[in-house]
Amino acid sequence: MQKTASSSTLGPDGLNIAQSFFKPIHNTSPPPTTTRNTKISVVGVGNVGMAIAQTILTQSLADEIALVDVNGDKLRGEMLDLQHAAAFLPRTKISASVDFSSTVGSDLVIVTAGARQIVGESRLNLLQRNVALFSKVVPPLAAASPECILLVVSNPVDVLTYVAWKLSGFPSNRVIGSGTNLDSSRFRFLIADHLDLNAQDVQAYIVGEHGDSSVALWSSISVGGVPILSFLERQQIAYEKQTLEKIHKEVVEGAYEVIKLKGYTSWAIGYSAASLARAILRDQRSIHPVSVLAKGFYGIDGGEPFLSLPAQLGRSGVLGVTNVHLTEDEENQLRESAKTILELQTQLGI
Amino acid sequence: MQKTASSSTLGPDGLNIAQSFFKPIHNTSPPPTTTRNTKISVVGVGNVGMAIAQTILTQSLADEIALVDVNGDKLRGEMLDLQHAAAFLPRTKISASVDFSSTVGSDLVIVTAGARQIVGESRLNLLQRNVALFSKVVPPLAAASPECILLVVSNPVDVLTYVAWKLSGFPSNRVIGSGTNLDSSRFRFLIADHLDLNAQDVQAYIVGEHGDSSVALWSSISVGGVPILSFLERQQIAYEKQTLEKIHKEVVEGAYEVIKLKGYTSWAIGYSAASLARAILRDQRSIHPVSVLAKGFYGIDGGEPFLSLPAQLGRSGVLGVTNVHLTEDEENQLRESAKTILELQTQLGI
Amino acid sequence: MQKTASSSTLGPDGLNIAQSFFKPIHNTSPPPTTTRNTKISVVGVGNVGMAIAQTILTQSLADEIALVDVNGDKLRGEMLDLQHAAAFLPRTKISASVDFSSTVGSDLVIVTAGARQIVGESRLNLLQRNVALFSKVVPPLAAASPECILLVVSNPVDVLTYVAWKLSGFPSNRVIGSGTNLDSSRFRFLIADHLDLNAQDVQAYIVGEHGDSSVALWSSISVGGVPILSFLERQQIAYEKQTLEKIHKEVVEGAYEVIKLKGYTSWAIGYSAASLARAILRDQRSIHPVSVLAKGFYGIDGGEPFLSLPAQLGRSGVLGVTNVHLTEDEENQLRESAKTILELQTQLGI
Amino acid sequence: MQKTASSSTLGPDGLNIAQSFFKPIHNTSPPPTTTRNTKISVVGVGNVGMAIAQTILTQSLADEIALVDVNGDKLRGEMLDLQHAAAFLPRTKISASVDFSSTVGSDLVIVTAGARQIVGESRLNLLQRNVALFSKVVPPLAAASPECILLVVSNPVDVLTYVAWKLSGFPSNRVIGSGTNLDSSRFRFLIADHLDLNAQDVQAYIVGEHGDSSVALWSSISVGGVPILSFLERQQIAYEKQTLEKIHKEVVEGAYEVIKLKGYTSWAIGYSAASLARAILRDQRSIHPVSVLAKGFYGIDGGEPFLSLPAQLGRSGVLGVTNVHLTEDEENQLRESAKTILELQTQLGI
Repeated sequence: MQKTASSSTLGPDGLNIAQSFFKPIHNTSPPPTTTRNTKISVVGVGNVGMAIAQTILTQSLADEIALVDVNGDKLRGEMLDLQHAAAFLPRTKISASVDFSSTVGSDLVIVTAGARQIVGESRLNLLQRNVALFSKVVPPLAAASPECILLVVSNPVDVLTYVAWKLSGFPSNRVIGSGTNLDSSRFRFLIADHLDLNAQDVQAYIVGEHGDSSVALWSSISVGGVPILSFLERQQIAYEKQTLEKIHKEVVEGAYEVIKLKGYTSWAIGYSAASLARAILRDQRSIHPVSVLAKGFYGIDGGEPFLSLPAQLGRSGVLGVTNVHLTEDEENQLRESAKTILELQTQLGI
Repeated sequence: MQKTASSSTLGPDGLNIAQSFFKPIHNTSPPPTTTRNTKISVVGVGNVGMAIAQTILTQSLADEIALVDVNGDKLRGEMLDLQHAAAFLPRTKISASVDFSSTVGSDLVIVTAGARQIVGESRLNLLQRNVALFSKVVPPLAAASPECILLVVSNPVDVLTYVAWKLSGFPSNRVIGSGTNLDSSRFRFLIADHLDLNAQDVQAYIVGEHGDSSVALWSSISVGGVPILSFLERQQIAYEKQTLEKIHKEVVEGAYEVIKLKGYTSWAIGYSAASLARAILRDQRSIHPVSVLAKGFYGIDGGEPFLSLPAQLGRSGVLGVTNVHLTEDEENQLRESAKTILELQTQLGI
Repeated sequence: MQKTASSSTLGPDGLNIAQSFFKPIHNTSPPPTTTRNTKISVVGVGNVGMAIAQTILTQSLADEIALVDVNGDKLRGEMLDLQHAAAFLPRTKISASVDFSSTVGSDLVIVTAGARQIVGESRLNLLQRNVALFSKVVPPLAAASPECILLVVSNPVDVLTYVAWKLSGFPSNRVIGSGTNLDSSRFRFLIADHLDLNAQDVQAYIVGEHGDSSVALWSSISVGGVPILSFLERQQIAYEKQTLEKIHKEVVEGAYEVIKLKGYTSWAIGYSAASLARAILRDQRSIHPVSVLAKGFYGIDGGEPFLSLPAQLGRSGVLGVTNVHLTEDEENQLRESAKTILELQTQLGI
Repeated sequence: MQKTASSSTLGPDGLNIAQSFFKPIHNTSPPPTTTRNTKISVVGVGNVGMAIAQTILTQSLADEIALVDVNGDKLRGEMLDLQHAAAFLPRTKISASVDFSSTVGSDLVIVTAGARQIVGESRLNLLQRNVALFSKVVPPLAAASPECILLVVSNPVDVLTYVAWKLSGFPSNRVIGSGTNLDSSRFRFLIADHLDLNAQDVQAYIVGEHGDSSVALWSSISVGGVPILSFLERQQIAYEKQTLEKIHKEVVEGAYEVIKLKGYTSWAIGYSAASLARAILRDQRSIHPVSVLAKGFYGIDGGEPFLSLPAQLGRSGVLGVTNVHLTEDEENQLRESAKTILELQTQLGI
């Protein structure tokens, strides 16, 4: 099938041109057996997968991007569309394959593939179909890139990250779900927009399940060194708990709203995944709320749930989880979130 | 309608928070009457418009991006999707409106709106519907941003750039069509891929009509200071004219192939338009094959056709056209290209 | 004197080439009377000034950089050295002049000029010589760019920012000192290095005088949403006040140590000033501890001292000061810092 | 001596904080034995070495930068000055050592160290002192990073690149001299400035010795697809050979002029070396005029001279030399250039 960027338009004459355009210098070494290039594979070239691939390309985060999809036509179309931009960008190799051959030796594999909900289908049924899909996809990906970090974006992201962990046989620090990284950006945007300041000055986290049971960590929001809750108290601002919950609600509904309006989400999740890719591949040791094996944190026990916690990410994946203090209420919500996820995991029987 | 990034979630209390979070310093000046921010408007939020907007956002080319579309839902969905990425990017204001109010004071207006071909519809009929669309769109855009540069991306791009020029009343240096800028990138990619080198080392231009009658300037291709045609001659490489024409054919068919495979083109045109936006807004004085008023060049006369020539772009739009030497054959092809376009223009009766 | 990038090597023939290389298109508009390019002037091309100019150039923050210095040879050498890199960078106009002619119409003027301490000279005497220098420099700069933001980097930065404010006649929001922006970066680096994480995840501010009386805001440090002081308490970590003060001491002595070791500071202040330039010119509305008119904040009264507070910066300069809560101890230290500065200001008799 | 970024300010308590701030997740893998980070070492922290290091840092080309110098104080001062900017930049590890321990496992080693000419010293004597210096420096560098690419910037760059090649025992594709890469940028700048266009649209090469005997390849200059020599002919522009030689002379004298005016060159060589670092480490396969083993090219034989030719650079160093056509005159000049260099090499007796 379609494999790489190579066109073979010119036939045998083409070879002559290429060979005679450059001449090797004397005493060169044989081609190195291992390259040190940075390679990212994106599995699934739907709206989400392509927004991720294109953002990674624009931000020049990888030397090679490999695309994988079962739909060979769509796949080749997307590969060509990216390749055609070559003159506008630093050189990046763009390859593609319907099997997993193009992903060999990846540093980071981003999985966006997933089945779509059929009308009337139960959530559990959808999940089971996605588990079936992951069973076909994850083992060969893990085999092709045994040292890679696996980043799961497909939904429901927490359970599927758990599934990917089990299927890959990887240690838990190398299997990460995009989780509430995007929810947290939405949260920061809403707070920043409200205060008319830069969202990058806002430290604010949504943790727990990526979805309805997510937990907003109000007690740890800091804006330019100002903890928001105590600020409100000091200013004796007549806010009500409902007001804060309204912001959280807006975050949770953000994805639904975008889907309702444009049919899917793409750009923000593209930037979110690219920011995680940078943190990992450039060893940024920065903190991101992503889905990790949460066993043992905040009294979560009795299973191996994946859910989002503020985690430090670097070249070897998850370096640790921030020891952030939660209020009792927040801890309870988080444990509820974990329980929801664990129940689903149990039903899968993996 | 949907207007700006402002959420008003918090109601009257919200106002209190915002007001008390920052305190003004003494002796400040009144808010400036004119801002010096860089603003780009993108008209049409389909696949092309959004690929352009998102690339411009990622590359941080503007301080404000305004989106316009008739479909208010889709528009708001796209605006929100970009806004949600705020924490991952330098701060950029993203606004949107179904009318032209959000575009006021733009430095650059990029028009991607266009009607789609109906089955069985003649090319001329489609064009006439697009002219009707431009009649509604261009005059208010020009009125809202009388000093802007107008970049037309909608197809057929050459004739529609002419139409936009007429409707805007702008001087010709401020109305540009994306033309063969992308075709030229495809051309460079194919040559670079063939020689296994960086496309940015290839100077190669496709000029004329963006479409079937485009002209590949083989005689002016230079790769790292090596003119390809004389290189082939010197090397006595047994190439045939057909081989070169095959590459050109692959360029012309590139867009068709991508459309056939994935349904539309988006990423490459997004990068292409963003590269033009940078050249213009950052006053790069760089050379790009774009659609300009070609009257008087290479014996083109008898009308005011827009077609692509290697033009120097800067803050005031088109600064000039490169005095590149064409072979007699290339000149003839270019005049044929111009004739094709002029005929269409004449039929429009503008 | 040396003015611009123009070489006139080719004499009259040169003109011919330039004129015939590009041909204008028909019906172009006259050259615009006002350009919208972003222009930064750097006054003083010593180690600090050049580190700033070069960082701004590398980060592509301006379309034009104008250099000013009294030493015409050094000035021209620095201008040429930057210009020679043209092929490696996006196009930026680099100009230079020994007078203020090259700065006309700047958006941002960065003043790094300053007298050096003579052996045995008192601090006040040095300051008076710098005030004399500013008297010659600031009024013509303000006249040449009446709408600019003035960023003072010369030391002692707080008093000289006050002096620049008085001499410019500008409203206070348009006169800013680099203040403790760099001290705060050193602070964040030491904390981040200690915890082995990314400095950009650390919100931590040094405020007050840039110098020995600066104030570390321990109570408002937040790392990934974790307030450090309460974290230490909760963890019952046996830290002592001395340990924290040791970090602050290392920050204060950071500049002295670098000066002792390499003779001057340059790179870090270059990045610091460039970060402020970006915040201002790209209207980032982000928070930076910089020297602003502090009258009325935290009980500071009885004069018009400039000292560093966490300020929000945007296209119109200082937008406001964060309403951050200080402990009583921190407030006292800040007022002491203000007193020190006010005394110096009074002695100047401006 | 000073080694890394680690501060040990906080003593034993510090350890406690760091350990308890992050908690590891369950089932993590042991720390990887090999990292895949990109590491660049810069040997010599004078004006040139630091301009290179700082540009590489600003452009985020490496995950780790290691500095080496015999002057421990200056070295530590420069390391701290870069580290203090941590909050303004993506995280990059900055290390330093007076020996070669900090360079272990580098992907790219850039040598800028070199003796300075003593008044009255012959050129050969200076060169011999630099050879003595390289004898101490190159073997341990090669031993510490046996897979690295070696980029020599010290002058006289061509002979010293040959010396580094011999001393390293590396294959010739992994030993490169910065050569005329900067001369070519100056050349492009002068041509671009003259035509008032973007230097990145100019393909123009200076080859041969980096110095007085360098060769300007007039016949291969192409500006936006326009070969300049035939353009001048066609336009019947009354230029004279002297005029073109004047531009070349200005290039050759560019370095001397900057040195005369500011005492040394720094910024442009910093950008030049950074552009080579990017081409190599990001496998750009782009063409740069750099000093390579030129044996067998253009009739150069009878020895192993290093001099600049348009070479394609990628992850394994020199991939090949462009088969650019030279006029007979240019070929003769190039052979003369080679002869000059070979004579020097012979005198060294290596």
